[in-house]
Amino acid sequence: MRAVDIIARKRDGHTLTPAEIEFMVDGTVAGSVPDYQTAAWLMAIYLRGMRPEETAVLTERMRVSGDVFDLGSVPGIKVDKHSTGGVGDKVSLALAPLVAAAGVPVPMVSGRGLGHSGGTLDKLEAIPGFDVFRTEAEFRRQVAEVGCAIIGQTDNFVPADKRLYALRDVVACVESIPLITASIMSKKLASGADALVMDVKSGNGAFMKTDGDAAALAESLIATGRAMGKPVVALLTDMNQPLGRAIGNALETAEAIECLRGGGPADLREITLMLGAEMLVLGEKAKSPEEARATLTRLLDGGQALEKFRQMVRHQGGDPRVADDPGLMAKAPQVTVLRASTAGYVSRLDTAEIGRASNILGAGREKSADAVDHRVGLVMRVRLGDQVAEGDELLEIHHREGDGTLERCQAVLLPAIVIGDARPGVSPLIHRRM
Amino acid sequence: MRAVDIIARKRDGHTLTPAEIEFMVDGTVAGSVPDYQTAAWLMAIYLRGMRPEETAVLTERMRVSGDVFDLGSVPGIKVDKHSTGGVGDKVSLALAPLVAAAGVPVPMVSGRGLGHSGGTLDKLEAIPGFDVFRTEAEFRRQVAEVGCAIIGQTDNFVPADKRLYALRDVVACVESIPLITASIMSKKLASGADALVMDVKSGNGAFMKTDGDAAALAESLIATGRAMGKPVVALLTDMNQPLGRAIGNALETAEAIECLRGGGPADLREITLMLGAEMLVLGEKAKSPEEARATLTRLLDGGQALEKFRQMVRHQGGDPRVADDPGLMAKAPQVTVLRASTAGYVSRLDTAEIGRASNILGAGREKSADAVDHRVGLVMRVRLGDQVAEGDELLEIHHREGDGTLERCQAVLLPAIVIGDARPGVSPLIHRRM
Repeated sequence: MRAVDIIARKRDGHTLTPAEIEFMVDGTVAGSVPDYQTAAWLMAIYLRGMRPEETAVLTERMRVSGDVFDLGSVPGIKVDKHSTGGVGDKVSLALAPLVAAAGVPVPMVSGRGLGHSGGTLDKLEAIPGFDVFRTEAEFRRQVAEVGCAIIGQTDNFVPADKRLYALRDVVACVESIPLITASIMSKKLASGADALVMDVKSGNGAFMKTDGDAAALAESLIATGRAMGKPVVALLTDMNQPLGRAIGNALETAEAIECLRGGGPADLREITLMLGAEMLVLGEKAKSPEEARATLTRLLDGGQALEKFRQMVRHQGGDPRVADDPGLMAKAPQVTVLRASTAGYVSRLDTAEIGRASNILGAGREKSADAVDHRVGLVMRVRLGDQVAEGDELLEIHHREGDGTLERCQAVLLPAIVIGDARPGVSPLIHRRM
Repeated sequence: MRAVDIIARKRDGHTLTPAEIEFMVDGTVAGSVPDYQTAAWLMAIYLRGMRPEETAVLTERMRVSGDVFDLGSVPGIKVDKHSTGGVGDKVSLALAPLVAAAGVPVPMVSGRGLGHSGGTLDKLEAIPGFDVFRTEAEFRRQVAEVGCAIIGQTDNFVPADKRLYALRDVVACVESIPLITASIMSKKLASGADALVMDVKSGNGAFMKTDGDAAALAESLIATGRAMGKPVVALLTDMNQPLGRAIGNALETAEAIECLRGGGPADLREITLMLGAEMLVLGEKAKSPEEARATLTRLLDGGQALEKFRQMVRHQGGDPRVADDPGLMAKAPQVTVLRASTAGYVSRLDTAEIGRASNILGAGREKSADAVDHRVGLVMRVRLGDQVAEGDELLEIHHREGDGTLERCQAVLLPAIVIGDARPGVSPLIHRRM
């Protein structure tokens, strides 16, 4: 078998055999297929696509390219959630303990923020002492004992994805449905999940800008799950404005804790309940989403979800008192309020730019080696469609002093918040269930 | 400017700017654009194509990537011929001196054989002493003094093509019309030609299997020439059987000498006159192809073309007596005749396989580092459509002894020569002028 022939077959739009896909994945990881051949192959996949059965083989071969977490000894159907990423998306922090409180084990291997969107690990690390670096054995024990864990990737976790993603990034092959699918699914299934709920975001703060693109990705995720015998449910959700109010690590963790205490912004609570209901059904702890939702509502409002969060934090070395006093997390030295310079309706929020503005403060990273300042970020005081008078508060900027980040952040924010004369149409939070 | 953005633009089917194309060509040659980015870019070009104006910019930037031969001091319009390659194609050896004898300078930088097709340099090196390694100054002087020269590439001749071709070869991007066009034209124009005649071959022994593919390449070559201000005329010619009778280096050179003496196979003489007539018109030494053809016929039959060949051989260190006695070239130790095992019509010749059979004898190379045996090869005794009786001679095999090449050659030849009951349709030699 020769890489050049496999490239040619994909170039010509043929369906690759499992052996051909395995040859390319294994060769890329081992270095026997040089990067230039892998790069040309990725571009051929980008432009020619893959059938679901090809994507499934690609996913499976990537999944087994490194550490594979075996949670067979943990009783129950393990269910995980993945979000395609957005601004203010702190759902995992509330959802994992909530669903675990309902008896469904949630083994979550998460990532860090990159580009305009934040990362679950960065948010958790705002909690004093919280440790995301856990071995497989620690992870397994915690999922068994607590019911949930949120950790980072081990060094040898799906190395095929690390290799392929690094190449995709520099050869303009990131935005490919089959490649995105394989990247997401290989990691989620290597972490030991039996079933998955996908939060596929669409809008100006999402990776997928339109519902059409988001639906195509959701379909690919579902079809690949089906081919691999892993049930997948997808919700298409709105990312035309930040989720909740807080953007930035400690601010978002605090907001997730609010949600776990039965409060917090309505959209965050709603999406957490919707995703959680699907997880309970997949985990066979509820017969219907309606029944599941009733259970989850009780657990949120009754404090059991918060208690599960406390246990998770304690197991991972964090200070569990943060569940009762988010003020234990470090705060930004200054808060500056941005006010409306004119009256009207909040008619457009450029969500990706708002994410970028938060990163400029130090909340995120442009390169993966950058450090993150957990204290800084934004708190939205308005939502799309709100009517404002001149001088009304639009948002709070939690920032450092004297390093110019406030000014640079404001320069990005100003054009990102559009005040218009007409009340805008506002998309629903949940666009569609698939 | 970033390579990843240029790749993305071609991936999405946009027309690249001259600056973008130049960035990629220069970066690939300099090494500042890594191979994996160039490879992905090539695949995007393969699948998305290029407009003629993009191909022209690509060609020009490749042309100036290394040595550029300046023949401005040589009077007259310099005209060169390029063939896309076939089996038995020794046309350049007769054509260059013939056209030079008519007063049109022919500066020819040729290549070596690779795969099933032979190379002009290998054929010339069958002449004792003939030297294809000449400096630019020697090349210029010979074109000025003799009127023609056929040499190999200098070390720094169009390095962009060497680099890009090496990559195309391993990432399945060889058969791309814009990339083939730029590869051919950059080299032909770096050698100092003002106008070009293209012999675009089509058929089972050609790179382009169909007239449709051949016409598309011809159109691209003509359009690119137009964009660069270099007139290009293309003839689409037949490669469903070997050209002439001889295949193999010394055998082909001897046949080209026959042609220069006014004899030789009819198809070789015809195609030489047709291509030559176009070159004379481009070189403004004739008003029409008809007038040109009359001139060339006179020069072939009157010995002036042969005398020009003698001068060229002498200038390049070869033994000019070969023009009168091709027997001065080394001969294969053995000749074995292959005979028809059944009566019927020669209904199909698998021309690429016949070329491969000649290579197995030692006439060609599979890898560019392989050595060539100038003595060996095949001489066809039949042409497509000929009627044969059982036991009639089909071809001569000129071979070495005792090294197994005869047997391996015969095994490839037998299925490549099909004798059938019905007289086949035979394509004309010249399919089309463009």
